[in-house]
Amino acid sequence: MSTGNRQFTLVARPQGMVKRSDFAFAEAAVPEPKDGEVLVKTRYISLDPAMRGWMNEGKSYIRPVALGEVMRAGTAGEVLSSRSPAFTAGDQVVGTWGVQDYAAVAAESLSKVDAKLAPLPKYLGVLGMPGLTAYFGLLEVGLPKAGEVVVVSGASGAVGQVVGQIAKLKGCTAIGIAGGADKCEYVVKELGFDACIDYKAQDVKKALREAAPKGVDVYFDNVGGDILDAVLTQIRMKARIVICGAISQYNNTTPVKGPSNYMSLLVNRARMEGMVVFDWAPRYGEGIQAMAGWMAEGKLKSREDIVEGLETFPETLNKLFSGENFGKLLIKV
Amino acid sequence: MSTGNRQFTLVARPQGMVKRSDFAFAEAAVPEPKDGEVLVKTRYISLDPAMRGWMNEGKSYIRPVALGEVMRAGTAGEVLSSRSPAFTAGDQVVGTWGVQDYAAVAAESLSKVDAKLAPLPKYLGVLGMPGLTAYFGLLEVGLPKAGEVVVVSGASGAVGQVVGQIAKLKGCTAIGIAGGADKCEYVVKELGFDACIDYKAQDVKKALREAAPKGVDVYFDNVGGDILDAVLTQIRMKARIVICGAISQYNNTTPVKGPSNYMSLLVNRARMEGMVVFDWAPRYGEGIQAMAGWMAEGKLKSREDIVEGLETFPETLNKLFSGENFGKLLIKV
Repeated sequence: MSTGNRQFTLVARPQGMVKRSDFAFAEAAVPEPKDGEVLVKTRYISLDPAMRGWMNEGKSYIRPVALGEVMRAGTAGEVLSSRSPAFTAGDQVVGTWGVQDYAAVAAESLSKVDAKLAPLPKYLGVLGMPGLTAYFGLLEVGLPKAGEVVVVSGASGAVGQVVGQIAKLKGCTAIGIAGGADKCEYVVKELGFDACIDYKAQDVKKALREAAPKGVDVYFDNVGGDILDAVLTQIRMKARIVICGAISQYNNTTPVKGPSNYMSLLVNRARMEGMVVFDWAPRYGEGIQAMAGWMAEGKLKSREDIVEGLETFPETLNKLFSGENFGKLLIKV
Repeated sequence: MSTGNRQFTLVARPQGMVKRSDFAFAEAAVPEPKDGEVLVKTRYISLDPAMRGWMNEGKSYIRPVALGEVMRAGTAGEVLSSRSPAFTAGDQVVGTWGVQDYAAVAAESLSKVDAKLAPLPKYLGVLGMPGLTAYFGLLEVGLPKAGEVVVVSGASGAVGQVVGQIAKLKGCTAIGIAGGADKCEYVVKELGFDACIDYKAQDVKKALREAAPKGVDVYFDNVGGDILDAVLTQIRMKARIVICGAISQYNNTTPVKGPSNYMSLLVNRARMEGMVVFDWAPRYGEGIQAMAGWMAEGKLKSREDIVEGLETFPETLNKLFSGENFGKLLIKV
């Protein structure tokens, strides 16, 4: 047993944006797998907005990361040794073993992936939780019908880019909302969205009224705050708003900004519904199969933003909240 | 043709609570019905929270009352003369002819009611829009299942009292939220709710946690504001929140308070959906029949708060917003 397993351990509940001092960064021993466990080497770490919520105390859809615990994160890597018949050394796997170089984890917590079919980072993005969130959130909660107008915020992000492309595949008009001309250009020119609103440069309400003069049927919300409020003014009768996240509010040190315009739900007989991808776990295979098929046909593209070095974790995570990332954010270890 | 038709005409868009000066109160001629019209004498005027919204400019689910127009209101009364084969003098009818003594209205805008089956005021309450709002809003949007916990705010009001009783009829636990010990006592002792929280005397969140330790499955919201936010903290997985009104916000001169705790929808995979009773117009007969049946069996009670005198209109309307009314608020003309 050697040392050399670098780990980020949560040591303080962050106030606002995370700081390096909210974590201990130290080396531990590379663990020894027990019976039924697998020793994995981390290749990629997924950075997701939800991670900010996991650092807070209090009831949520998943238990908070405890103080003194390795920070939870989606991960992809390679099996080094296995004490489970389900895996052998050299297997490429994804799991949630956290921000560290190595882990000994229960075999049931891992999924084998085919790195020949798609590069490993895709399994943390379009073929992983973000892609599945987009797939089930849009199709099962948003319930878009061909000809309808689908709007998605965080449009160039891990979830948003998939939402808009699936909307197009289903015959809808797809309108993105993103921060910056480069991101907007990407989702329109590369991903085929019909339009994109740059919330940093445009008045979202006015721009939406121009891009969707008949209004919005489905809004897939990743950001909350003022953008949710602006879209609420532009919804159509029987609109569906999928509440997937509220990245604008995750670092608040003041109370969350509730949507002042929520009475538009009444005027328009519309609904707002929350979703968590875990609920579709029994159907992940269906989602991955559909998306891998579209990828093979060139109909579903995705972009990753890969930062090198596990040691960059706190600063890299904050890129999500400052909007500096462009595509699915990952650390390459 | 005589004068003697007293009318309240909207002359200013109210700021905050309505003032007498927002209306002109004057006498016009009693109108002469044209072909296809009916001359009606007003007996009761319905006072509904929604009326405050109708006085505001801007797009809503119904066009605003224009300046110079008689104030819109639900009404019940008697046919004096008819130029339509559908009605004859002496018929008891309900309609929406507004805050005035007489009106000549299109026959299609009236419904005949049987004053022997139930007194006229009931047709503006439990057998009218408020009752139908409760019936379709709870059953079609709230979708309560036997054994679930249903919470309703404005519990002693025109809609709330019906919501809780239908919840009980469907095998649910019914918890009211109302302002004052007398109202709470009424909904529990007279109407058979399981519990009632007096929001003026109790901490709603804490009281709900005690009354519904497993959480809330359906919340029928008539009030918005802090009470909506408190209930959001206590919802169960897959909860349904019916947005029927937001009486706490209708007289705001500052922006509406959005529900800060709306992310509880995500954590609990819950939904919040707006409803307007007009959408169920083709099924009103079904709702009235069901409720009249329950009334006949003594299973559905209702209370009216009847104020005498058309001339009291502005002050009587404000009773809704100060919470002074106790039961369905009506003016007897």
